[in-house]
This record gives sequence, structure tokens and C-alpha cells, in this order.
Amino acid sequence: MLQSQAQQTVEVSVGRVCTIAEYLLERLVQLNVTSIFGVPGDFNLAFLDYIESHSKLGWVGNCNELNAAYAADGYARVKEGSIGVVVTTFGQKNKLVLHHTFGDGRYDMYFKAAQQVVISHASLQDKATAAAEIDRVITDCVLMARPVYLVLPTDLVSAQIPAERLQTPLNTEPPQNDPETESVVLDEIVKLIEEAERGVIILVDACSIRRNVKDEVFEFAKKTRFPVYSTPMGKTAIPEDYELHGGIYAGVTSRPEVKAKVESAKLIISVGGLKTNFNTGNFTNKISPAQTVELHSDHTRIRLATYHGIGMKHLLPKLTERMQPFKEDVKAIDVPEFTLPVSQEDNDKISHLWLWPRLGQFFKKGDIIVAEAGTAYFGALEIPMPGGSVFMSQFLWCSIGWTVGSTLGAAIAARDMGLPRVILFVGDGSIQMTAQELSTMIRYGVKPIIFVLKNNGYTAERYLHDENAQYNDIATWQGFFLPPMGGTEGETCQSYTVRTKNELSQLLDNVEFAKAEKIQLVEPLMDTHDAPRVLKVLAALLKKAKLEE
Amino acid sequence: MLQSQAQQTVEVSVGRVCTIAEYLLERLVQLNVTSIFGVPGDFNLAFLDYIESHSKLGWVGNCNELNAAYAADGYARVKEGSIGVVVTTFGQKNKLVLHHTFGDGRYDMYFKAAQQVVISHASLQDKATAAAEIDRVITDCVLMARPVYLVLPTDLVSAQIPAERLQTPLNTEPPQNDPETESVVLDEIVKLIEEAERGVIILVDACSIRRNVKDEVFEFAKKTRFPVYSTPMGKTAIPEDYELHGGIYAGVTSRPEVKAKVESAKLIISVGGLKTNFNTGNFTNKISPAQTVELHSDHTRIRLATYHGIGMKHLLPKLTERMQPFKEDVKAIDVPEFTLPVSQEDNDKISHLWLWPRLGQFFKKGDIIVAEAGTAYFGALEIPMPGGSVFMSQFLWCSIGWTVGSTLGAAIAARDMGLPRVILFVGDGSIQMTAQELSTMIRYGVKPIIFVLKNNGYTAERYLHDENAQYNDIATWQGFFLPPMGGTEGETCQSYTVRTKNELSQLLDNVEFAKAEKIQLVEPLMDTHDAPRVLKVLAALLKKAKLEE
Repeated sequence: MLQSQAQQTVEVSVGRVCTIAEYLLERLVQLNVTSIFGVPGDFNLAFLDYIESHSKLGWVGNCNELNAAYAADGYARVKEGSIGVVVTTFGQKNKLVLHHTFGDGRYDMYFKAAQQVVISHASLQDKATAAAEIDRVITDCVLMARPVYLVLPTDLVSAQIPAERLQTPLNTEPPQNDPETESVVLDEIVKLIEEAERGVIILVDACSIRRNVKDEVFEFAKKTRFPVYSTPMGKTAIPEDYELHGGIYAGVTSRPEVKAKVESAKLIISVGGLKTNFNTGNFTNKISPAQTVELHSDHTRIRLATYHGIGMKHLLPKLTERMQPFKEDVKAIDVPEFTLPVSQEDNDKISHLWLWPRLGQFFKKGDIIVAEAGTAYFGALEIPMPGGSVFMSQFLWCSIGWTVGSTLGAAIAARDMGLPRVILFVGDGSIQMTAQELSTMIRYGVKPIIFVLKNNGYTAERYLHDENAQYNDIATWQGFFLPPMGGTEGETCQSYTVRTKNELSQLLDNVEFAKAEKIQLVEPLMDTHDAPRVLKVLAALLKKAKLEE
Repeated sequence: MLQSQAQQTVEVSVGRVCTIAEYLLERLVQLNVTSIFGVPGDFNLAFLDYIESHSKLGWVGNCNELNAAYAADGYARVKEGSIGVVVTTFGQKNKLVLHHTFGDGRYDMYFKAAQQVVISHASLQDKATAAAEIDRVITDCVLMARPVYLVLPTDLVSAQIPAERLQTPLNTEPPQNDPETESVVLDEIVKLIEEAERGVIILVDACSIRRNVKDEVFEFAKKTRFPVYSTPMGKTAIPEDYELHGGIYAGVTSRPEVKAKVESAKLIISVGGLKTNFNTGNFTNKISPAQTVELHSDHTRIRLATYHGIGMKHLLPKLTERMQPFKEDVKAIDVPEFTLPVSQEDNDKISHLWLWPRLGQFFKKGDIIVAEAGTAYFGALEIPMPGGSVFMSQFLWCSIGWTVGSTLGAAIAARDMGLPRVILFVGDGSIQMTAQELSTMIRYGVKPIIFVLKNNGYTAERYLHDENAQYNDIATWQGFFLPPMGGTEGETCQSYTVRTKNELSQLLDNVEFAKAEKIQLVEPLMDTHDAPRVLKVLAALLKKAKLEE
């Protein structure tokens, strides 16, 4: 199943016809898709036959559709430039009262529901336009980095269409910027940078990852030697062990030294900014538009002026070219050291204060680190991660349980890419949402290390509203649930309950454990009401805001 | 939490105000709702506080939202006249870029997506209309027996509104029929019945259950002594041990003697008919409209003429009144005996042929029997069930995994109603969809008996398309997954693997097992390619239809 760009020859012959299914799959292969996720269902089986018999594609059967979607998301986040694909049932052209419908003759309800969450969609009804529609929807998916939805009716799966369009790769490059406007924009930015002298910082955010400008912004940073900070959603866009990475900025939830530096900058170059409540410390970011240049995928904002159509993918390299290389001693640059020493406490209980810096010592280059929206996320946020590691979370939508499915997808992508370790942090409430996908990990032989923070329920919710409400309690699961899901304890899987700092430290120092050669599940027992620093600050903020309402 | 109609006093005082949350909950209590399902989320916590502190309502925290919806569905199906309620996040009026959104300022996407599947909906934005909107939506839910969707923004949860509307119970009776039209309809039906002499049969279908006319149709049947048959979706609408119940009719998938009787009837009184593909043996029902009277919730069809607005709830009792009581010896009536003897086989493997009749001997009056769409459903269909038992399945939408969540809800409703046993049949593929809800069963102390048919994957799909396709394989789970989910084996739960007919028979005959005093999970090992008779017939039909396309 492994393949490089070069190997991506078109399976169907030039000048010949192919089926619509083959056309679609070939387009996915051209985007370096190697695994497709989903659940078989009566009306997609004919299409699944094409996947099962495809030499370059593997089918990953999930336990349910939600988990499949999460897995595809995780796959796409690790496999940059590729996409995640989910196949579900159902689509039919004729209007019989079939199962998998409401029996009311409506066949478009899934399509209409999906339209609420996708950037582009098509329902193939005509083989004359099918290829163009497939190309349009897939191109939008890559270009906009957003979900798309394609309905392929059973009766069109094997319909024959010309194959020659497949010879032309999809153009997934963002459009070029208008040269005249771009030139003005560059002049303006260069002027502001010069005026700010060395009081410039770079703030990388979510869309620097989504819109794939991580390399471009890092080149800009290295040439200029401007200090770099990340928002929570920009975490690991720039290697966090880069000597001029100063840490994470999110308003009043930031560490004080980071907050002071960012908010006193003369000029902020914001890359791919996304101003959500959690990403900005509940909108406490003190960044004046008058001191900010915002680079986005499809526009640029310089102080108060917006330049539509000027996207960062093409702008950034030109901006870097305009910069003078910074020659002075890097040590003279005043940037906080992004580090988090392990706290000394006078007891052996596993606290958040101790846990996260200690885990920081465990991470290695190339690790994929996944953290659930909850205490796990808020804790992982503050650990500086090694260069070449990828931090994954879903912190806008905040669907808990997302990490379990996405860890499966990430692990499958990581295996393709030769990345050895995927490490998941998830709460005991969150894992219950999607736990069955552990069995899919076992089935497909991926070997993540899974930390289940065992603290008796939805601790983040307790902080955000009422610490003692019973609805934040959960069913008590009793560890060791890999064997019932198909693992053989000690052979294909290994489960650990750790009660003390010392026990966890020993485990983290165990060379065999660190090698991640089987799927491992670790349950650190933690206090119900303990939480990482950032969550505590944020919760206090939200409570204060509520009282003032 | 137990209560009768009489106890349903209004908690809020006359002439006083109440919060919108209290108003809504009071309406639910008036409909005999005692448990509410869902998952806590940041934006619903304020509302959950009202549920948690309500003296007549209990909160059931599910592992995820899908499972919660299934549980509410199961609850409603058992608790007739009541409704199932799910609370999820999210709803906000102001348009900040909050988590649980896509960050694009749209707050109505869940609402719009939900509109595809609900019969009625409201988004409360104004406290002046909130009470009327709540009443409208809940009334539609009961009256139409379909899902509804209500958005309650966080900032309106505690808004004060007048409470006096609560003194007037919601009117959930179907509207009266127009007397003149109804009179014509009755005359026409009586005439056809007389003309058919004794060649009349009654065919009960899905909507006799959904629209709550089971009692009315049974009265009609008992007075006239017309033979009764059920479609698959009408199963247990009429007690299956009723001496004139002839069995299940669904076109060519019916047993031959049933098919012959139904298709040779001079007149068919069809009650609550729903002509879906599976419910009609893939549309092979040979029932001529010229020989049929169709009774529906909102119209009546007599041969080829449709009478709009004439609904069966009020029509049926009047029709029964017009009938002459049948006085002759009931034994003279020619109706097949609805029975399924246990097959003798020359081996000890647990086959579908043997399994279902054997299970039939295990069922008792008052049992709630739940069967997953798959081999479980097709097998259970043919077993005659005891009077007073309820058969539950979801055979139009066919979402596999539905039964696990709905068994939880059914069991909670059954406990309210003093019904001792809920018995679930689910495949090993289906249970993986929603398995975590077993932990909720353990947590809330309900004690269903769960049979997991262990046959290595999606056997129904194998029959419908390709027996050996790998996408129909699943992860191998290894039984005994109640203890990891919080059960204590031998105390609060008990797991069994049964390999032979003899082992299963012994278990079924075990008095302690039959008492269902703890949650019990039984895994009968079955052949991957074995299937019940009806599935085999249906699969052959579908394959033939495909070849002829």
C-alpha cells in the first residue's frame, strides 16, 4: 500500500473508459490517499468492492460512522497534502420506500443535513457531468481544507465514463495573488516592519496548519529572527524547540512572561489567525489591530485595511525574500525560554501540575501527540514539544471522543509515513464516547500509547459550571478493556494502572514501553477536582463573565 | 420517581411565574416522562441543573449523543402515551466564535440539520412566545408520533414566564373526523364486509403501534372474529397467542400457508400500513387495492377512493360498534396456527433454524423483546410471542447498533412500569456500534438479558451482496466485556459463552438465569454464513432483482 508521488500512475488506460467508482478512487490515489474509512451498508457495498480490489487502497472498517469520520480527520491531519475519506451508506435515485430512509420518499435528507457542515457538495445524477463534479468537490476539499460531501448513487457506481481527465492532475494550488495589489501589500508590510525596528513578533495560529504554510512561515522566522509565539490552535506549527519560540499566547490564560512580551510588541505578524473563545483566553487577547498585520488564506489585513484576494501561501515567500537576513547574535534577542520544569510536590499523587512537564520529558522527535478537549488539552498545551512532533486536537468544535477515532486515523497515516509513535491523552469521560475504536486499532495493528486520565467524569465541565453536579459523573469503567476488544494482554496489547508519580515515572523511563511496539493503555488515577493551570484560569474568567451578565 | 396520572400535580403555583426550563419540564412530567437522556455539555449545564433538582425527573447520562437518542426512542416505545427526551448541547443567541461551532458565526447548523429528520421544530428566542412554542412542538411529537426538535438558548433557561398555561393539559388527541364523511366511510366499509361474507382478514401494520390503536383494532378483531395477520413492522400489535392470529405476512418471504390465506382473502382490512421494501418482502405483497380497506392515522382508503381527514383512532371504535358479534364456534374459522416448533438437527451446532423456536419457549408474558436489524430481526420475526409481550425493532431506518441504546431506554421504562424482563438480540457487528451503553445499563441498575449472536461480522450484509467480502468482517471481541464497563462478574453481571444447543438449552432452562436479576450477556457461537429463513428468501429476491436490472 505504500507509494510515492512517482508511483502514482493512472490504473486505467489513456483513451479508455473507466467506471465512476474507478475515476473517483483514482483521484484519491493521486492525492496520496492510501486508506479509506467507513462502515459497510447495503447501498455502498458495490462501491466497497472497488476499494477492496484496488491495489493501492486499503479499507479500514470502523465500528460506527461517527468514529469513521473522526478517523478520517486524524488521517488527514497527519498526512499533509492528502485528505481523509469516509464511505457511508446511502444514496438512491428512484424513490421506493426503502430501509435506511424515513419511508416518506425523501432521499435527500442526509445530503441536506450534510450541507450544514461542508464547504462543497455534489450529488452525482448524470454520468456526463460526474467526472467534473468529482474533480470540483475534491479540489474544494484540498484547497479550502474543509469537509466536502459527495453522493454516489448505487446505480452509477459502475457506469462507464471517459478516463482521459485523469491524465491532468487536480490543481489544488491556491490562486495567484493580483501582482499589483500584492506589491502594495509587500511594501506596506516591509515599511511597518522597518518602523517597528526589532519590536516585531510572529504569532502563528490554526490556519497556518490548515492552509499549509508552516514551512513558509518558519523560513520567514528564521531569516528575520523575529520571536515566534503560537496560539493554542497554532501549537507545533513552528517547532517548539526552536530557540526563538517563546511559548503559547492566549490572552490572560497565557503565562505572564509570554503575555507581557506579546502585548508589548510594536508589530505582530499574525499568521492564519482564528479568534475563537478558547483560542483567545475567552476574548482577552490584547492585540491592537493598529499594530497587527494579519496573513490569511484569502486576504491580508494591514492595520485597519483589508486587501481581499491576497493569500499568505504566495505572499509569505515573497515577504521573506524582501527581508534582510538578521546577522547579530541570536542570544541577544529577548524571548522567554519555552520550558516547563517538573514541579516538586510533597506527595506522590499524580497531579496535573506534575504530570504534564513529566510527560514532556517522554516526548521525542516525530511523535504525534493527540489531546482531547478537556483537562488533557489544557495540560498538554503548556508542554513544549520536540521539533518534528505534531500536536493534534479539536479545539473549536470540541466534540469529546474525537481523539479516539482520530488517533486511529493518525496512527494509520503515521505508519504510512514511517513515524513511530502516536500518543493519546484522553479523559475517562471522553473515551466512553468512542471507545470501541480501540478494537479497530488492534484489528489493523496500529500501536498508539493511550493515556486515559482517570478522574471520575467530566472534570472540565465541572470547572466550567458546577463542580459537584451529578450529571458530570460517568459510569465507572475498570481498565483493561483492550483484551475484550481483541487484544492479547502482554502480546498484542498491554494495560497499566498507575497510582503514583513514582509508578508513572518508572513506566515512562521503561525502554520497552517507550518503543511502543504494542498497543498500550495507561490509566493514571487522578483527583476528580484537579485541573491544569490554563483550565483553572479560563474557568474563573468564564464564571466572572457570567456574574457580570 | 414513580408516579400515576393522579400524582401529576403542577409543581409551580397557579398565577405565579416559572422559568422556561420549569415550564418545559412540567409539560414533560404531565406526559408521564420520568427519565431524560443525554450528555452534559457546556451550554446545557444550566438546564441540567433544573432536571437534577426536579423531584419527578431522573437524569440518565449516556456515553454519547447517538446512544442517548436511541435510548430515548426505546423509552418511548415501551412507555406508550409518553415520549422520549434527549438533551444535548448547543444553542446560543449572540454570535461569538465559540467552541462547539465551526467558527463561522453560524449557530443554526444543528437546527437546520435536525430539520431534515423532525416533524416539528422551534428555536426559542422570545419569552413571550416560548410557552406556546413548547406546547406546539410537544403536541406535534405526541400526535404525529415523530421526532421534534427544540432549541433552548442558555440565556433563556431561567427567564421567567407566566405559569398558568400549565393548568390546561396538552390536547394530544387526534382531531375528530368530519361526521358526514365518516358516516359515508362507515357505510362503505360495512357494505364491503358484508359482501365479503366471512372472507375478511385484518392485517395490522407499523402505524397501529405508532398511532396507538392497538386496543381499538383488537376490539374490532375480537368482536368480528376475523383472522388477524401482522406485517413484520406490526409484530405484537395484536397478541400473537390470540387464537385467531395467523402469523406474519410479507409477500413471498411469508410462510406459504400465511401467504396463501392473505392473498386469497376477499377483503383485507389493513390497519396502519407502511409499504417499505423489507416490510413487504421487497414489494412482493400481492394485495389488490380493489380488495382492500386501508385505515390510516389521517385518511382512509376504500378500494380506490381516498377519504382525507378520516383517521382510524376515532373510526375504528365506530366500525366495531356497527359490527354484529360473531357467535359461531371459533374452531370453525380457518386460520393457520401461528407456531414454530423446534427443529431437530443431527448436530449440536447452534443454527438459526434451531435457535429461534427454542428461544420462543423462553419468552414470557410481559417480556420486552428487542431485535437488531440483521439476522436477529429476521430470526425473531417468525417466533410467535406471548400475549402482553412487546416486540421492538427499527426496521425502516435500519441503523445497526440502535438496539443497544434502545434497550437501555426500554429497560428504564420497563422498570417504571413493573415489567420484569427486557431481552435483546444483537449481532456481534451491531453491538460494536454502541457497546459503551452497556456501562450505562450497569450504572443505572437495569438488568436486560443480552444475546450477542457471534458470527464474525455483518452476516446480513453478506447475504445481501457478497458473502466473502472482507469489509463485512469485524474486529474480534472476546466476550466478557461487562466487567471492564463497571460490572462485577457474578454479582452485578454475568457473562456466558455458549457453544452448543445443549449448553444454550441448559442456560435457558436455568431458573436463576430466567429471573434476570442481574445484567446478563450471552454469546452463542454461530456459523458465519448461517441465516434465518426469511433473510435467505429476501436475499435471493434482491439478487434476482439486481440481475434483472
